[in-house]
Amino acid sequence: MSLVVQKFGGTSVADADRIRAVADHVARTRRTGEDVVVVVSAMGKTTDELVRLAEDVSRVRPGRELDMLYTAGERISMALLCMALAERACPAASFTGSQAGIITDTLHTKARILEVKGDRLRAALAEGIVPVVAGFQGVSFTRDVTTLGRGGSDTTAVALAAALGAQRCEIYTDVSGVFSADPRVVPSARKVPKISFGEMLEIAATGGRVLALRSVEFARNHHVPLIVRSSFTWEPGTTITEEDSDMEQAVVSAITHDISQAKLTLTGVADRPGIAASLFRHLADKAVNVDMIVQNVSRSGTTDISITVPRDDLALSREVALSLKDELGADDVVADEDVATVSLVGAGMRTHPGVTATMFETLASENINIEMISTSPIRISCMVRAELAERAVQLLHRAFELDSPT
Amino acid sequence: MSLVVQKFGGTSVADADRIRAVADHVARTRRTGEDVVVVVSAMGKTTDELVRLAEDVSRVRPGRELDMLYTAGERISMALLCMALAERACPAASFTGSQAGIITDTLHTKARILEVKGDRLRAALAEGIVPVVAGFQGVSFTRDVTTLGRGGSDTTAVALAAALGAQRCEIYTDVSGVFSADPRVVPSARKVPKISFGEMLEIAATGGRVLALRSVEFARNHHVPLIVRSSFTWEPGTTITEEDSDMEQAVVSAITHDISQAKLTLTGVADRPGIAASLFRHLADKAVNVDMIVQNVSRSGTTDISITVPRDDLALSREVALSLKDELGADDVVADEDVATVSLVGAGMRTHPGVTATMFETLASENINIEMISTSPIRISCMVRAELAERAVQLLHRAFELDSPT
Repeated sequence: MSLVVQKFGGTSVADADRIRAVADHVARTRRTGEDVVVVVSAMGKTTDELVRLAEDVSRVRPGRELDMLYTAGERISMALLCMALAERACPAASFTGSQAGIITDTLHTKARILEVKGDRLRAALAEGIVPVVAGFQGVSFTRDVTTLGRGGSDTTAVALAAALGAQRCEIYTDVSGVFSADPRVVPSARKVPKISFGEMLEIAATGGRVLALRSVEFARNHHVPLIVRSSFTWEPGTTITEEDSDMEQAVVSAITHDISQAKLTLTGVADRPGIAASLFRHLADKAVNVDMIVQNVSRSGTTDISITVPRDDLALSREVALSLKDELGADDVVADEDVATVSLVGAGMRTHPGVTATMFETLASENINIEMISTSPIRISCMVRAELAERAVQLLHRAFELDSPT
Repeated sequence: MSLVVQKFGGTSVADADRIRAVADHVARTRRTGEDVVVVVSAMGKTTDELVRLAEDVSRVRPGRELDMLYTAGERISMALLCMALAERACPAASFTGSQAGIITDTLHTKARILEVKGDRLRAALAEGIVPVVAGFQGVSFTRDVTTLGRGGSDTTAVALAAALGAQRCEIYTDVSGVFSADPRVVPSARKVPKISFGEMLEIAATGGRVLALRSVEFARNHHVPLIVRSSFTWEPGTTITEEDSDMEQAVVSAITHDISQAKLTLTGVADRPGIAASLFRHLADKAVNVDMIVQNVSRSGTTDISITVPRDDLALSREVALSLKDELGADDVVADEDVATVSLVGAGMRTHPGVTATMFETLASENINIEMISTSPIRISCMVRAELAERAVQLLHRAFELDSPT
């Protein structure tokens, strides 16, 4: 029998009504003859509330105990969903990360999955029972409760789909799929019916919020087709699969933007080998991810180096840079938060020259200055002033003819 | 090193302030040089809220899923307490019932403990870490999460104290000990400093709410001294131990009352052997506990049988009796909810004749009619009209000179 993994996020199980709606959908899927494994997040803002409670109780919050705390959330949602399924004559049983055999390393609050055993899930399926598994959680090889960090429930779903040989993994959320741009910025943005893993990775990395980067990587590596759908409208969503010959190769699939980055510039740095390396080594030691890098041409033996870092890491990164100022021979360290990146993503870009030129011309036509650029074979990202980012997305969306057919 | 188990109930960990107060107390105990194992309940009314949520979601609520749901509560309180202990430089680690090795049968929502492994708790203690264990929960031998039912956290504490060889088990709650009567009914009631297991069992069975019967039985069977104390005032509480020769044998230690019972009477029953047996067998089959039984003397070959049953089981018991009406040759089945039992408990009663006479005279002096009587070697219980119960307790408390010295 074919197997599907269905994952429901926090908004999809936010209250009793939503949980009943999810139970209806799971029971309906089961009646089509498919086996279903369900993965659930904690209800609505449960985890946020637990975080606030912990902050209220203590300034010291060991990761092991945070994980014990957070994992209360999925117990509640999965038990309630099992009850609603039982009421619908669809036998179900809940399984914690530990019971499902999701074995992780010991890095509390951001553990990585080492192995998925899944024996109890297979046994449940064999008995005609729908396993409802707690997303986001696992158990370390030292038998402690762990959580998988941001986007962890998506990762759980994909990992189970891979381990159990599911035909597909359906991610239910509060949006109806992947869009050609953020519909709040571009009201005419259209839903993309099908997209490749490569494109989805670029979208997730450049500001698209639908899926966490990590779960998409996991799905690609394990060849698990993903479907993103709405648990509010249940309309057809976006399928994310391997790139294949019959997949329409859109030149540009989506325009994304990201205001969570900031720019850090070191001016007057001595232009000699090893300078940039030293800076990046020190930032890496503090776990700061550097995305774009620009080094100006040397003028009289010195140069400027600009990098982008997550805005949350800007203060830390500035400290690192300042501590290296003398060693690098820099004049100054300048932090700039008022920036945003705007990106074009499209697998067809590889075979269509001129995309970059069109992008630059479009932005130039409205006097939007490009401060930094980074590219991949299927993406072009430009840094612009933050207040111009939404305008840039709107212009590019029109220039690449991504608007919905009206 | 000597070991103490400290158990904190829902009101003791109801909010961030209470949790910090508990952490202060545990850290203080630890600094005296004693090893501590902590057992916690869920915060305040958490479990009640989860019950309401479940009722809102589904009419069908399988026990396995209720247990998964309920056990979310202790995860939260124990993780928060561990954080507060860490802030106080008192290293602590939380353990679920499963991690603590509390192995139960498979009777969901009222499982019984079969074995306490406790390996991880011993390992933590050996490393100088305070184990904070989830009360109320265990894991079945089929690896499913279970809960121990009403008073389950007390049972967890006593079971751990027995398994780990603790010197004593301290039960912290919102009252400061065992009282000679309910202080809301008898304002002059005094705290009993020391009491025997036998007396405590009778008190718990006849309306005293301080400790669950089951945990007292467990403590007696495993010779674990219990101490009941307040986590609000931290004043000395009541010690419950084996009866020993130097223990003062109070004639009457406490007056209890219980309004949770009801009376069921079958009138005009044929007075022949096996009639009562048939009734009790059928009630036992429905898991109804019968406490008192009175059978009147036979008048012309028929008799009346009255029994007391928990008020919650009255409707069910009445149905059982009605279904047997013809078989038993009864005229009628009469249910009566407006009754209460008033009990005297005291180990010294065994060696002091006249207690029963004093009790009856005291009640008679105010025209309080005794409808049924049951006794044990250290207890006398009388059924009276419900509206007279509190007056009866006050009269008896004075008659047996239990008032606090003023």
